[in-house]
Amino acid sequence: MNTAPPPMPPAYDSGDTAWLLACTAIVLLMTPGLAFFYGGMVRTKHVLMMIKMSFAALTFGTLVWWAIGYTLAFGPDVGGLGLIGNLDHVFMHDVGLNTLSGHLPTYVYSTFQMGFAIITVALISGAIADRATMKGWLVFVVLWLLIVYIPLAHWVFDTDGWIVKHLGALDFAGGLPVELNSGVAGLAAALVLRAPRDFARREERPNNIPLVVIGAALLWFGWFGFNSGSALNDQGTAAGAFINTQLGAAGAMVTWPLVEKWRNGKVTTLGVVSAAVAGMVAITPACGEINTLGAVVTGLVTGAVCAFAVTLKFRFGVDDTLDVVGVHGVGGLIGLIMVGLFATARISGKKGLFYGGGGALLGKQVLAILAVIAFSFILTWLIAKVVDLTVGFRAPEEYGRVPGAEEERAYDFQTAERLGALVSGKPVRSDDELVRRISELLHAREESK
Amino acid sequence: MNTAPPPMPPAYDSGDTAWLLACTAIVLLMTPGLAFFYGGMVRTKHVLMMIKMSFAALTFGTLVWWAIGYTLAFGPDVGGLGLIGNLDHVFMHDVGLNTLSGHLPTYVYSTFQMGFAIITVALISGAIADRATMKGWLVFVVLWLLIVYIPLAHWVFDTDGWIVKHLGALDFAGGLPVELNSGVAGLAAALVLRAPRDFARREERPNNIPLVVIGAALLWFGWFGFNSGSALNDQGTAAGAFINTQLGAAGAMVTWPLVEKWRNGKVTTLGVVSAAVAGMVAITPACGEINTLGAVVTGLVTGAVCAFAVTLKFRFGVDDTLDVVGVHGVGGLIGLIMVGLFATARISGKKGLFYGGGGALLGKQVLAILAVIAFSFILTWLIAKVVDLTVGFRAPEEYGRVPGAEEERAYDFQTAERLGALVSGKPVRSDDELVRRISELLHAREESK
Amino acid sequence: MNTAPPPMPPAYDSGDTAWLLACTAIVLLMTPGLAFFYGGMVRTKHVLMMIKMSFAALTFGTLVWWAIGYTLAFGPDVGGLGLIGNLDHVFMHDVGLNTLSGHLPTYVYSTFQMGFAIITVALISGAIADRATMKGWLVFVVLWLLIVYIPLAHWVFDTDGWIVKHLGALDFAGGLPVELNSGVAGLAAALVLRAPRDFARREERPNNIPLVVIGAALLWFGWFGFNSGSALNDQGTAAGAFINTQLGAAGAMVTWPLVEKWRNGKVTTLGVVSAAVAGMVAITPACGEINTLGAVVTGLVTGAVCAFAVTLKFRFGVDDTLDVVGVHGVGGLIGLIMVGLFATARISGKKGLFYGGGGALLGKQVLAILAVIAFSFILTWLIAKVVDLTVGFRAPEEYGRVPGAEEERAYDFQTAERLGALVSGKPVRSDDELVRRISELLHAREESK
Repeated sequence: MNTAPPPMPPAYDSGDTAWLLACTAIVLLMTPGLAFFYGGMVRTKHVLMMIKMSFAALTFGTLVWWAIGYTLAFGPDVGGLGLIGNLDHVFMHDVGLNTLSGHLPTYVYSTFQMGFAIITVALISGAIADRATMKGWLVFVVLWLLIVYIPLAHWVFDTDGWIVKHLGALDFAGGLPVELNSGVAGLAAALVLRAPRDFARREERPNNIPLVVIGAALLWFGWFGFNSGSALNDQGTAAGAFINTQLGAAGAMVTWPLVEKWRNGKVTTLGVVSAAVAGMVAITPACGEINTLGAVVTGLVTGAVCAFAVTLKFRFGVDDTLDVVGVHGVGGLIGLIMVGLFATARISGKKGLFYGGGGALLGKQVLAILAVIAFSFILTWLIAKVVDLTVGFRAPEEYGRVPGAEEERAYDFQTAERLGALVSGKPVRSDDELVRRISELLHAREESK
Repeated sequence: MNTAPPPMPPAYDSGDTAWLLACTAIVLLMTPGLAFFYGGMVRTKHVLMMIKMSFAALTFGTLVWWAIGYTLAFGPDVGGLGLIGNLDHVFMHDVGLNTLSGHLPTYVYSTFQMGFAIITVALISGAIADRATMKGWLVFVVLWLLIVYIPLAHWVFDTDGWIVKHLGALDFAGGLPVELNSGVAGLAAALVLRAPRDFARREERPNNIPLVVIGAALLWFGWFGFNSGSALNDQGTAAGAFINTQLGAAGAMVTWPLVEKWRNGKVTTLGVVSAAVAGMVAITPACGEINTLGAVVTGLVTGAVCAFAVTLKFRFGVDDTLDVVGVHGVGGLIGLIMVGLFATARISGKKGLFYGGGGALLGKQVLAILAVIAFSFILTWLIAKVVDLTVGFRAPEEYGRVPGAEEERAYDFQTAERLGALVSGKPVRSDDELVRRISELLHAREESK
Repeated sequence: MNTAPPPMPPAYDSGDTAWLLACTAIVLLMTPGLAFFYGGMVRTKHVLMMIKMSFAALTFGTLVWWAIGYTLAFGPDVGGLGLIGNLDHVFMHDVGLNTLSGHLPTYVYSTFQMGFAIITVALISGAIADRATMKGWLVFVVLWLLIVYIPLAHWVFDTDGWIVKHLGALDFAGGLPVELNSGVAGLAAALVLRAPRDFARREERPNNIPLVVIGAALLWFGWFGFNSGSALNDQGTAAGAFINTQLGAAGAMVTWPLVEKWRNGKVTTLGVVSAAVAGMVAITPACGEINTLGAVVTGLVTGAVCAFAVTLKFRFGVDDTLDVVGVHGVGGLIGLIMVGLFATARISGKKGLFYGGGGALLGKQVLAILAVIAFSFILTWLIAKVVDLTVGFRAPEEYGRVPGAEEERAYDFQTAERLGALVSGKPVRSDDELVRRISELLHAREESK
């Protein structure tokens, strides 16, 4: 049941809002998607921990954004410096049903951006899979959003942010605050939460690749909302960002498998879906600024480079477990550079090197990249270190020993039940019971001999 | 290929319709989501039955709604009593491509509401998992929709329904006909389909928790359409309902895990996703009537209360197998009460107790709750009893014995094949064959000794 | 960050575009859905190959469409014959942010149609599961899109195509180029890639039915976009196509299980979800042209017929492994005939046999069907044969031997790890290691006796 809503101001656009509401829903679905993407890649005993880390980001990302994140990122700029918003809208104060941001109800814009904050911090969990404590992760999520993500969101996504307003770099949908930032933060966190020296030699088969692919499919789906929705309308800009997202993914899915084939003689499903993700990472800052040819080239380059980048962790001995640095950091970097090369002035009026704009835009992109890398790396390293020294972030040993990690089991397919019924003549109710029975049986025989 | 559609009347709004079409699609995805949510929670041998129960709801819910449900719920009110609609639109009679309901094509509104009917009856399957016959379930679905759901939909969702028109209680998106109703009906059905006395002691490990989480993710995604779409437009009301849905889920995901940690010393993935569902259940009636603070409080309260509520079944000996009563019944109740406390008059013009409205609205909410509980409990109990006495609803014994339940297997991962190849030197094609081989091998040795 | 987009021409409709953007996203999600639908149905060792085949269609379908497919299908017609478009828009040349197709930005329309091309070719993989080489598949995808799909898309989806313009047959959302075409092409490909004679006797249990259902759910979800979006607006036509999609699925889900019950005494989950797919296949050409009664009848007939059709492969000895011919070919055929019987003139002005239009429309439908069958069968057979003779399409033996097919494992649930820990007293890291240990243990005992 519902009655007449409050009248909307004239700037309100019903079609734009319809698309942005849909985008918000699918962007919020990306973090569960990430939970499956990461959850399927680890060993069976770590599946649930990866899922819980993403859901913790959903929980605290939502509440931090509502309480203070939105106003710090998108409230009126403090002092005109483009560094941070003020506290006017703390707890969404002064935002009502008919408050607008551009053509959209502010509740829509705020929730859309909430989805960006949530997935960015959730991405970092992939760089420290198998060895973070949940307690440390919870504290890290809150601190990192407040100290690292929210300022960067203001710098780039707010029209008064210094990177877009004063520097004039271009980032359509979040190559700086989301992709590069999560990659760099993942590196810093992985350095603080050192892996055992032999991590490269461990035989770690993903427990469930179809689950990884389900996650990748939801990420892909959500990315249309992420990139196209960043137009904040449903006009040609949104449409261009949409098709470029698809082209970026497809381009990367050509070259990554070629590199795999050349290096290892085979193409893995994991490589194929990682390629799709890498292509979309790179297209994120560029999708509204380049044409379709630029998008395909961005995808092709990113697939090839990232396929190499994800193997560097073994050379440098940094256990970026699920390749956050190699995919989001490197992919984001490529995309931001591509803007400097391929921007066509279609929206921003700025041209890249290859479209007659000279090196000016490229220079701005590089400055923005360096600023974000420095800011994100230093502060993330400090936060992770402080968390580790206070509540404890690095699990004492390889993850199985983290209290509670093994108690709830991801799967119980009862193959055991059926085996047990024949082996011992009696039905068994769980894998554990089967193990007991077989063990007893074998020991009994041992002794009877 | 398509040509010019018939012209739409002036009240038609293209943006509103775009959002409601999207909402309808994602609401209809909720029932498969529920199939995974429930399917992952039971033991391996019951997965497919839970999935088939949800798909039966999809099948017969669709056809019942088309044939007669829509007109009984939303056709012109019979006698102005607000009890039921008439038969003007039986089989969608007199509904054409340019017929409107408010700003929307009636086909959109009708299909959106069809999704509500389907998921409500599907929810009940969780209260009788492992022990209902499929034959009984099919009959129950049809009777229950006709006798219980459709009248309640008229009472609450139709502007002429007595609960909204005459009583003046508030229920934005279905706390009464969907949440409270499914919870109470689940209780009644669980009482008729009694579980074995020792149900609490059975060791029942969920077969596939990632599948549960996939289901929860789809439910969450669909709930944005369910709640926000209930505004029937894409203006500020829709936006407010959307963000409140997210805040309700996040609030509950804080308190439920805290209760788990305090009671059992650990936080389960099952608890986390159940919390998200419970939070969204409670926010359903309230999401358009309260502000964001009210939404967070509703989530926090619901998470804490429902974490306790789901354990009461062991005390009372009612096998509400997958916690329909504890989550949907109790969560819906909390949300309906919250409206009486936190309503801000933003749409309805009615204020709750905490916003200066006195106890009037709260009293109406309580009356509506009592009416729905009585109506749903009594009629559901009678329907379940009649179904059990006629076609048979309670499976004779624990579910494995239901004919057909074990014949199609949910999983065959062929771990067995690989084990078998080495154990017996020959490849085996199925788990069954492996079991035979190991068994033979062991017996052969037994005899050879 | 974004600034003012280029102004859109007056024909642009923001609400229509909002819905079509959403439709495009969910149609593109259908191909990952298909990957799960097919991936869950095969044996464990073939899961990843099925997934990779669908993702190859995503990759090369996207790039072929962008490079040349869009312009051949929707560029200005060559010579007014309705056979093919010209090369004006090769690489999306001359398509900008404010270029429109009808009410929509051309980038939206082109990407929406890209999704159709991708899923159509991906469907064929189900007819040759377990026995195609990846190299052959990659070449086949590109050639088949260019030679078979793209002309058919022009014939039917382009307003200048001969089937809609000159012949005057009706096909709302792609019964000819998508459903019938993929079914017929699947038959031709299955004939070229002959299965072993005994394929019917192999015991092939699906490895993961919940994964099949996840795929079916995503297909169902995407089909709302596929059918309703084919209205290219969000008015009554879109709404009518939407509800008819749901009714077609529900109708088929009544009759298919009845046939299963009657023939085999039980209803399978696989049957239920295949029924939903078959119902939506049949409703695809009809959904905008028939009323809701026509949709239910179409569903009921299709469910019954397809339940029989999928068993014919055993009689004819053609290994249409995952029933592409029986579901998409036969289902598409039924839907196209139904248009000739039940069309109500609601959009096209043409009436079917049962609505007073005589046999004229039915005759046109039959001609269109015959043309598509001949074109698709002959050309697909030739393409598959050429691919087989050049790069090799038929894998030399049953799929396990295809190089690389077994190296990446879909699942590793480490049941083995837990079994191994007790059986041999030491933890094991993989199923493989467990197998070695058990084997050693058994052999050791054998020898010690």
